Amino acid sequence: MSYQGQSISEVGESIALKETVRHLRPANRAEVGSGDDAAVIRHAEPRFVITTDTMVEGKDFRLDISSGADLGYKAVASNLADVAAMGATPTALVVAVVLPPATKLSWLEDFAKGLQLAIDELCPSAEVVGGDIATGDQIVIAVTATGDLEGREAVLRSGATPGDLVCVAGTLGKAAAGLDLMLSPDSSLAASYPELVGIQLRPQPPLELVIASDGITAMMDISDSLALDSSRLASASDVKLELDSKSLLGYQAVLEQAAQSLSSRGTERSPMDWVLFGGEDHSFLTTFRSTPPKGFKQIGIVSPGSGVYLDGEPLEPRGWDSLSN
Amino acid sequence: MSYQGQSISEVGESIALKETVRHLRPANRAEVGSGDDAAVIRHAEPRFVITTDTMVEGKDFRLDISSGADLGYKAVASNLADVAAMGATPTALVVAVVLPPATKLSWLEDFAKGLQLAIDELCPSAEVVGGDIATGDQIVIAVTATGDLEGREAVLRSGATPGDLVCVAGTLGKAAAGLDLMLSPDSSLAASYPELVGIQLRPQPPLELVIASDGITAMMDISDSLALDSSRLASASDVKLELDSKSLLGYQAVLEQAAQSLSSRGTERSPMDWVLFGGEDHSFLTTFRSTPPKGFKQIGIVSPGSGVYLDGEPLEPRGWDSLSN
Repeated sequence: MSYQGQSISEVGESIALKETVRHLRPANRAEVGSGDDAAVIRHAEPRFVITTDTMVEGKDFRLDISSGADLGYKAVASNLADVAAMGATPTALVVAVVLPPATKLSWLEDFAKGLQLAIDELCPSAEVVGGDIATGDQIVIAVTATGDLEGREAVLRSGATPGDLVCVAGTLGKAAAGLDLMLSPDSSLAASYPELVGIQLRPQPPLELVIASDGITAMMDISDSLALDSSRLASASDVKLELDSKSLLGYQAVLEQAAQSLSSRGTERSPMDWVLFGGEDHSFLTTFRSTPPKGFKQIGIVSPGSGVYLDGEPLEPRGWDSLSN
Repeated sequence: MSYQGQSISEVGESIALKETVRHLRPANRAEVGSGDDAAVIRHAEPRFVITTDTMVEGKDFRLDISSGADLGYKAVASNLADVAAMGATPTALVVAVVLPPATKLSWLEDFAKGLQLAIDELCPSAEVVGGDIATGDQIVIAVTATGDLEGREAVLRSGATPGDLVCVAGTLGKAAAGLDLMLSPDSSLAASYPELVGIQLRPQPPLELVIASDGITAMMDISDSLALDSSRLASASDVKLELDSKSLLGYQAVLEQAAQSLSSRGTERSPMDWVLFGGEDHSFLTTFRSTPPKGFKQIGIVSPGSGVYLDGEPLEPRGWDSLSN
């Protein structure tokens, strides 16, 4: 049967759920998948990691910028990054979504395809095992993800000690630059920077690099900004982070052309601001006791004290605040 | 420091989270509680049950009827009921909440108190281990709950076979009656029926009765209506459910006075319609191979075939549809 052009309120809950689940890979890890009161997941051991993250239309995203598939992708990526930031392998996701009643069923199907694509590209061992669809005035996407520590210790924000090396895995500032490009009055500009725009719409956290990586003493997902999230890690570990701007030049360099393009159209942006204060890359802030493996870039050191410093100057803990922005 | 009268956007994410977590009992089961990228929970065995449920302002609740504490209570109760309906002991909850920026911090604190009160009253072994607060146009509450099967088999909707007894644990129709009383133009009416109103605002699923209860062959949470949820169990088990209206008279009788009160004020309601088609009691529909233990009420039998019948007549699968209502 075809539901082309129909809205979710026209087809009802039962069909909307069925047409959504159709785009999700049947569960392998789940002993019981979606369709009962709850799913049943089996892990390698009797512990599990659990985290939840919410995205709200008009606040965290705009429908003229992100497609349904983009939003499904991003919701999965940000939650899997939180699981991996504990050193755990992502296993299951449950997805609660609130949609205006007039939302086309095709949009919901596109969203489901985005969920599955992110899993396939970022972490094929994970799966969507359940969810809930409701109606409301604006789109809200609330994803909860679980992970298996597979016998390892959880990697906390509080594990950094003086002498450790501060390292980053993944991109910095690209997501923020991509957003500024898409918000430019020159609507043709975004097309010239597909990588930056792509990171904003579909973040690429390097999950495999950080899960089970030897020697990490503390770790967190950089979702709100390098400056703000560093201040959180410093506080949790009761240490000072001393960052070195020279080590950030590489992140800055790849954003300079985009900043110039924006500047020539009247919008002034600093590549270093994107790197320090831009969120949504969903990269990883880590500390290592000794030289990190390939894929991690050292950007500073851990010292006794508190707060975050850049080249010896206090770095303002500025970034995304989910309630004040 | 006092934040009296301040809104969540005035105090910001960090303080809002801290003031919320303050009302939640410190985690015992969680090896890592809230405050890191994710929580770490330990179970008795390497399986866990997971479910999610969403409540939307104006759709699932109204702020002139439910307090913050009521909503916290109900969100917990409905999710714990889904976990218990699998035969699992609830262990952890993560709570994502979207609030208008002008929401008072005191409302959020009241909501947190309701979360904890429901846990204390319904299932003290569970705990809130994490969450997320965001801002939006209307309140959305998305809770995910996990449970421990403690070595038992999960109880599915699909386990009923002909010859089983159809039984209910918990109330039927009280939540729907309570809602109609609160929506009456006579605003003094609700106060005369504190029990019915109480079940609507703070459902009382008999969790302990159904978790690990011997001999249950199939089970589900009755959230949308006895008629609709029975049709789902019948379909999942590929059987017919034959219900007997005489066995429902007790549920009906306790609602008759409320129906008369409404009738005398011009609102006609049928107690049997509340019992059959009213949702939100979060009671349990179960099937047993033999006589159920105390606390379960037999309302019918399982036969070969399909669909749900009341006194031999097909029963319309009418109830709450989260997208069409």
